[in-house]
Amino acid sequence: MFTKNQLKKYASLVLKVGVNLQKNQELVIFSPVECAPVTRILVEEAYKEGASLVRVRWEDEKVNRLNYLFADIDKLSDVPDYQVKERDYMLDNKVAYIAIDADDPNIYNGIDEKRLSICAKKRGIAFKKWREATMNNEIRWCVCSLPTLAWAKQVFPNSKTPLKDLTVKIKETMRLDSKNPVKAWEKHLKTLNKRAKFLNRQNFEYLEFKNSLGTDLRVGLAKNHLWLAAEEMAKDNIKFTANIPTEEIFTCPHAFKVDGVLKSALPLCYQGNIIDNFSISFKDGKVVDFSAEKGSETLKELIETDEGTYRLGEVALVPKNSPIAKQKILYFNTLFDENASSHLAIGKAYPTTVKNGSNLTKEELVKLGVNDSTEHVDFMIGTSDLSVVGVKKSGEKITIFSDGDFVI
Amino acid sequence: MFTKNQLKKYASLVLKVGVNLQKNQELVIFSPVECAPVTRILVEEAYKEGASLVRVRWEDEKVNRLNYLFADIDKLSDVPDYQVKERDYMLDNKVAYIAIDADDPNIYNGIDEKRLSICAKKRGIAFKKWREATMNNEIRWCVCSLPTLAWAKQVFPNSKTPLKDLTVKIKETMRLDSKNPVKAWEKHLKTLNKRAKFLNRQNFEYLEFKNSLGTDLRVGLAKNHLWLAAEEMAKDNIKFTANIPTEEIFTCPHAFKVDGVLKSALPLCYQGNIIDNFSISFKDGKVVDFSAEKGSETLKELIETDEGTYRLGEVALVPKNSPIAKQKILYFNTLFDENASSHLAIGKAYPTTVKNGSNLTKEELVKLGVNDSTEHVDFMIGTSDLSVVGVKKSGEKITIFSDGDFVI
Repeated sequence: MFTKNQLKKYASLVLKVGVNLQKNQELVIFSPVECAPVTRILVEEAYKEGASLVRVRWEDEKVNRLNYLFADIDKLSDVPDYQVKERDYMLDNKVAYIAIDADDPNIYNGIDEKRLSICAKKRGIAFKKWREATMNNEIRWCVCSLPTLAWAKQVFPNSKTPLKDLTVKIKETMRLDSKNPVKAWEKHLKTLNKRAKFLNRQNFEYLEFKNSLGTDLRVGLAKNHLWLAAEEMAKDNIKFTANIPTEEIFTCPHAFKVDGVLKSALPLCYQGNIIDNFSISFKDGKVVDFSAEKGSETLKELIETDEGTYRLGEVALVPKNSPIAKQKILYFNTLFDENASSHLAIGKAYPTTVKNGSNLTKEELVKLGVNDSTEHVDFMIGTSDLSVVGVKKSGEKITIFSDGDFVI
Repeated sequence: MFTKNQLKKYASLVLKVGVNLQKNQELVIFSPVECAPVTRILVEEAYKEGASLVRVRWEDEKVNRLNYLFADIDKLSDVPDYQVKERDYMLDNKVAYIAIDADDPNIYNGIDEKRLSICAKKRGIAFKKWREATMNNEIRWCVCSLPTLAWAKQVFPNSKTPLKDLTVKIKETMRLDSKNPVKAWEKHLKTLNKRAKFLNRQNFEYLEFKNSLGTDLRVGLAKNHLWLAAEEMAKDNIKFTANIPTEEIFTCPHAFKVDGVLKSALPLCYQGNIIDNFSISFKDGKVVDFSAEKGSETLKELIETDEGTYRLGEVALVPKNSPIAKQKILYFNTLFDENASSHLAIGKAYPTTVKNGSNLTKEELVKLGVNDSTEHVDFMIGTSDLSVVGVKKSGEKITIFSDGDFVI
């Protein structure tokens, strides 16, 4: 599907712009077994970039499905110590970490949500240190994607060549057809950084989201919040880009200052199940009501995961004319869909989205309004008629978005 | 390649006759990523047999090759603690363990033997507890195989359908075409057990191996040695079969009582390299000279691994008319080739091949002549004209093998 040349460009992009692999650094790749042919090329290219060692941790969602269906739930939900130690090893050795996200969006369809949720909760607790460290940029990491057949069939149900079609579209989102994708991305990231800088200068108190679907939401922003693009600075002062592709700029909502109602703009694929046409109401930052036309049980399990999943942890702006939005494809995969639409996240906020956040204690973060949770799940609210107004402490209002696009 | 029905038979055989999976037992499968379609069926069938949980640890020899080629050797040879802990978990939880052996016999061709050997030695030390436990039947385990393309091309270099051809042959060795392979195996294992019992009654002091290739070797047997077939009793008193297919009966040579010279009858594939037409001389149990027409460096690295790789750890008898021998195929894979030919092993002996061996201390085992090492590598010496004579303490000689076949 990819030409050899495109694969090299792909690898180069993920290694240089993504994790920004340094000479003599160790790289760990979490890859679906189905992606082995491409993952091997990633390994080879990583060595050309000077990796000291590349470890691949293979995963298979089809085996995971069988486990969710049939395993003893106590055994399945238990996270053995060696798996926690593996993540500790990655943190201790400051590895670069690439996750290849290529899930079948429906892989866990029909599985008892309770079982999925028990496992998610236990994993959330077991991998707490890992999650906090990655969200705190203690290592450089990148989530990217590769096309797989089951997923492609979901995106292009009527196509005779779904895998080919998905490949073409993913290549577009990654700008792989440009002569030098690394340069194209450097330019693109500059644009995103400019937007973030502009919003940082405004220092809004809150944002008002409105559209014809019925979204009418006031999202307070955390004290000292910072707008960021996916290109960030890791703790070691080396840049990296946590998602490829990425079209968003994002910041930290105030965990206790969200009021009103939101309507979903796109389906959300969570734990191999699709949640669609959902609505969530907030008061003082907390979810007080929710419903969904499809996947309401899955939404319930998500919101009831812990204290922090009743509150927001991210607010992100994506214009309706972003390259991914313009494709007018529903990927059923957040890495893509979140870059086609403005979005929010339920759960833990990135400490890096407040000033000096990665050096603050948990208590200091809470004081600023930075939410904590074992989860972080993005969902899309941006429609083509979305308006977003920023409100300053002085009461001054500035329209940021009109008809789904930036007006700043 | 396999029909659905054959796959179910395959799974049933490996689960029932192989690891003899019990209700509510956990199963761990080490599988090449290439074997995913069959491995998933193994997982599903294991749940039907009552597994409490099935974990699959995927491996990829192609990534391993890249690592051997390019990684920093200190990093690559270091075995992180979490990998040792994973094996500890398997032992502590008394899992059933299936290893799918489907290596490309030439996968590490051209790689510096020193690098392979440094890694093998460090792994040998790190996984010492694991190796001792499995060789001591502390858990039930089974090595089985599945056809893969690179391997098939090596076995059938002139075929247009190598994968199909290898599949047909492997199915034959596993008796998958019989109506009820599990029953066929029970019958076959009975025959092997009978042979072992006969030899146990003889209680030979040593065996004399001779053939026209030039093998002229006197192999002392350990005190209290036991002849076994692959169907053994695990520590929990539940039967299992450590290899499928298997055609051998085997016992423990005396580490200090091997004299003479042996000539290889088949190539040996060790660490992704082929060693062929080799010769080894022994005095008082120890290797005193060796040479090989092909792969002499690899043979050198094997023999020089540690003290124990200078001595033997297994002697096994396989008749020239064994179903695998009759196929007249060179598999370049010991699981098959060792069942086409009588063989010996360099390195650690199975404690279970002496009476009450799994309950003896290291010192007690050494006293009986049971060899210890971080390695255990089988190699084939059985030709169609091999003769094996058993010599008793009284001096009485009994011919066991004549012209490559049992005469008992």
